[in-house]
Order: sequence, then C-alpha cells, then structure tokens
Amino acid sequence: MEENTAPFIAQRNNVTILGQGSQVMVFAHGFGCDQNMWRYVIPAFLEGYKVVLFDHVGAGHSDLSQFDPVKYGTLHGYAKDVLDICRLAGGRDIIFVGHSVSALIGILAAIEAPEMFSRLILVGPSPCYINDGDYIGGFERANIEELLEFMDGNYLGWSSAMAPAIMGNPDRPSLASELENSFCRTDPEIAKHFARTTFLSDHRADLDKLTVPSLILQCSADVIAPQAVGEYLHRQLANSTLVLMKATGHCPNLSAPDETIESIARYLPPSTTGRGHHQQAA
Amino acid sequence: MEENTAPFIAQRNNVTILGQGSQVMVFAHGFGCDQNMWRYVIPAFLEGYKVVLFDHVGAGHSDLSQFDPVKYGTLHGYAKDVLDICRLAGGRDIIFVGHSVSALIGILAAIEAPEMFSRLILVGPSPCYINDGDYIGGFERANIEELLEFMDGNYLGWSSAMAPAIMGNPDRPSLASELENSFCRTDPEIAKHFARTTFLSDHRADLDKLTVPSLILQCSADVIAPQAVGEYLHRQLANSTLVLMKATGHCPNLSAPDETIESIARYLPPSTTGRGHHQQAA
Repeated sequence: MEENTAPFIAQRNNVTILGQGSQVMVFAHGFGCDQNMWRYVIPAFLEGYKVVLFDHVGAGHSDLSQFDPVKYGTLHGYAKDVLDICRLAGGRDIIFVGHSVSALIGILAAIEAPEMFSRLILVGPSPCYINDGDYIGGFERANIEELLEFMDGNYLGWSSAMAPAIMGNPDRPSLASELENSFCRTDPEIAKHFARTTFLSDHRADLDKLTVPSLILQCSADVIAPQAVGEYLHRQLANSTLVLMKATGHCPNLSAPDETIESIARYLPPSTTGRGHHQQAA
Repeated sequence: MEENTAPFIAQRNNVTILGQGSQVMVFAHGFGCDQNMWRYVIPAFLEGYKVVLFDHVGAGHSDLSQFDPVKYGTLHGYAKDVLDICRLAGGRDIIFVGHSVSALIGILAAIEAPEMFSRLILVGPSPCYINDGDYIGGFERANIEELLEFMDGNYLGWSSAMAPAIMGNPDRPSLASELENSFCRTDPEIAKHFARTTFLSDHRADLDKLTVPSLILQCSADVIAPQAVGEYLHRQLANSTLVLMKATGHCPNLSAPDETIESIARYLPPSTTGRGHHQQAA
C-alpha cells in the first residue's frame, strides 16, 4: 500500500468508523492505552455523530512496523497521523476529543490545519509536566527523570506500580488493573519512547497559535495534570472553556464516563443529524 | 543507659514534650517522615494539652543504633515503643494521634494497654493495603510487590517518583518535594525494611479487639488509603467515628492542617486546662 492512501492510514492506525451522524467526532487515546478506552463514552454520541476511533502507531492494533522513532520523537509526528485520519474522515467540521497527551497532539494538529476542526475537547491536557519558575506542571524535573528511569529498567514493574497512582479511584481497583493491563499490552520499547516524548514535551509556546475553540476538561486530584495546568491552558488558549470535573484521577473517560459525556454534550452545539446529543434527548 | 529508663526512651525516640495542658496528646508520624511533619498541627493544641512528639526508631533524629530488624519486622515492635513513650508521658488518659501506618501502630498499642488511652485519632489509616476478596485495600499484591522491588533497587528514585503520587495536591509541588526530601533523609536500608513491614501488614483480624474510642480521618482521593478502607475500619472498630475530609492525598497534616486541626478539635471533649481546643477559643 502506498503511504497516505486511505487503506494505508486505516490499517496503520487501526481506524474504526461508527455512528449515524454526518458531523465527525475523532477520539484519540492517551499514553499506554488504545481506542478501547473510549468504550463507555462513545455510545452516547453514536446517534448524533460519525464517530472515528483509532490507535496511535505503537498502541492497540496499530501497525507496529510503521513505528519510526524519529517521526514519533516529537508530538508533531503523532499530530501528522491525526491529520491523516481527519482527512480520511472528511477533513472538515471535525470535533476532536483527545485524552491526556492526545489533547496536546490535537492542539498541534489544529494549529497545523485549523480549517479541518470545529472544536477540540481536551480531557486532562497538559502542555508541560515539569514545574518551571512560576509555571506549575506538577512534577520537578527529577521526579520525571526518575519515573522514566524506573520505566526503562522495568517496564512491567513501572506499569504495576504507577497505574494505581495515575488512575486514582483506589476504591475501584479494577480501574487501575485495566490501566495496568493496557500499559502491559503495549510494546515496552515503544511505550518507553512514547513516555519520553510525552513527559519531556513542552508545548507552552505553541498555545497562542491555536484558533479553534476548545473545551478543557480538568479532573480533580489528578496527579498527572493538576488544576493549575488546566487554568494555565484556559488563560493561554483563545476561545477556550474550562470545566472542573468532580471526577478524580487522570482517566475520567474510564472512571466517570457519565460526567465526561455530560460535559462534552453540554459544550457541543446541537448536532444536525440523528437524535442529537444528550441535551436534546428526552 | 539502661533500656526502658526514661532517658533511654527519650533518646532512642528523640522525644519532645511541649505545651501547657495536663492531658497528653502523643503525635506519631508515618512512613518516611518524622515529628517535624506535625508542625502545622501542634500549635493549635499547645495551650490545651501536653503535646508529645517523637521519631520512630530509624526516622528523624532517633537513635539509629537501636534499629533491630527483628523487633521492627512487625508493627508490634513499633507499638511497643509507643507504649514506652506513653508511659514516659504519664501513662493515662492519652490522646494518641497517628498518621498512616502509625494509626495502626496506635491501634496495636491501645489493644495491648487500653487503660493508657482515652482516644485514638487515626489519620489516613489502613489495616491492609492489598485487595483480598471483597476487601478493598487499593492495591493488588503485584502492585505492592513492584513498588517494594522498585524501592529495593533504587530508593532515591522511588522517593522521587512516588512522593508526588502519595502527597497528591500536584498544584502545590512544594508539598511533594517536602515529602520526597523527608523520604531521602531516611536511611535507605531502614526505610526499605519499614516499607515492607508497613505495606505487607494485615491487621484486619486485630480490629475487633480495640475498645478505646477512635476518630478515623479519611481523606478524599487518597491513593494509599481509599475511602472504602476508612468505611471498613469504621464498621470494624467499636466506638469509632468516621470523618470524610475534603483534603486530598495522603498527608492532610501537611496539605490541609486547618481542616485536620478542626476535625480533631471537634472530636475531642473540651480540655480541662489552658484555653482548650479550637471550639472553645473565641
């Protein structure tokens, strides 16, 4: 298959298209996860939207042979794939929903090709995880370096030790177990590379280039993306809306899907096809 | 000095006695910390109580030469020291305040010598960190084993990686830094031993032996001691009171001292000396 043909992209990123609407929603998963992580959220949008799911190269059932450490050494490589997928899905009026690092990937994609996007939904986004002067990212550089070294030395150990902290919600241990299992299914070398690309990224200087309106879904007690980061993004992103969720931990798409759905639906204009979103539904 | 003499115990555990009241409050710190961790809480009690602070053997300025891996291989060894300290402090009508593992150490001490204690204040307690059938401890056994292996291999790395998750409150990075620094000041071999003793302990079967009334201070979004654990303790401990705090993370004594003070003061009867506790103060 030739690169950039629809079948090539569909296979590379294991693209799934569902739903009955005409407007497209693209859902992008975060580090160590795959499109399966959206399973509690997407049913609410299938009647009103065309729902596009995919796996980043290196994740889920993507084509691992396409993993290129140079291309995926920055978030721009992942953003390029998002643009391929968005073009495949029609390339206009797209609502992009990105979790965690994919929120930033979506921002980079929408800076590159704003004409393709109508709105971005940013779930637990952070443009920089490391504290820097007045900027609070949540981690000192040493914390991040130790997390990456731990991961380098023992990826499965890292997965088991860190999943409970990242997921939060210790009262529901099955959530952390699902995240841990998802981490463990990922190829360790690719995961380590993606982790480094993610946790050492700093896209604060790009934020004022975004023109597409965005919704920032900020969780409570999220050790990966603190509230100060959501507030920072809200200040830096023109046309952004900040919602502080009751959901705790870093994965509200898994731990609080109802609140996630409601928060997204409340932000979106009524869809033009199907039954529309939640607010229209009786 | 002879063992069990007051000077021996005072030096072994670096005992500090402060305050103007007659009733004694003993404050016990958790893993990787020392008596300094109570510095925001104790000022509120100095006028009404005699406040006793100490460092567990192996922590702070305790006498490291007294560290005995066999004695401190179970929480009973630490409970024995707490009883020594309580005897030193008068041995009756004691209010014991224990954070994290020291809450359990206090329970064991009060089971051994109930006549010494009037009340226990249990801050972020857990009788068992590992999920077991219907019991939710917050961690699978594999999670705990990986955390302990990580710590064995790289104690400073563990400290740097885990402090942010344990402290929570990523919006205030100085809190995690303080905890990390406190972990790092601890002798690594002793810390590893204490961690193993702590995280592999299971004292669920002891709980129904406690007769001393207790206050359980349960934090929100605490990845070490989930809410289900606080509720379990409340069911198992006779004469217990459960308070769900707004404070998040595992160290409300550092992250939310005002709420911690208020919660303790509200539970205690008016003190008989000094200005008394917060509720009496104008």
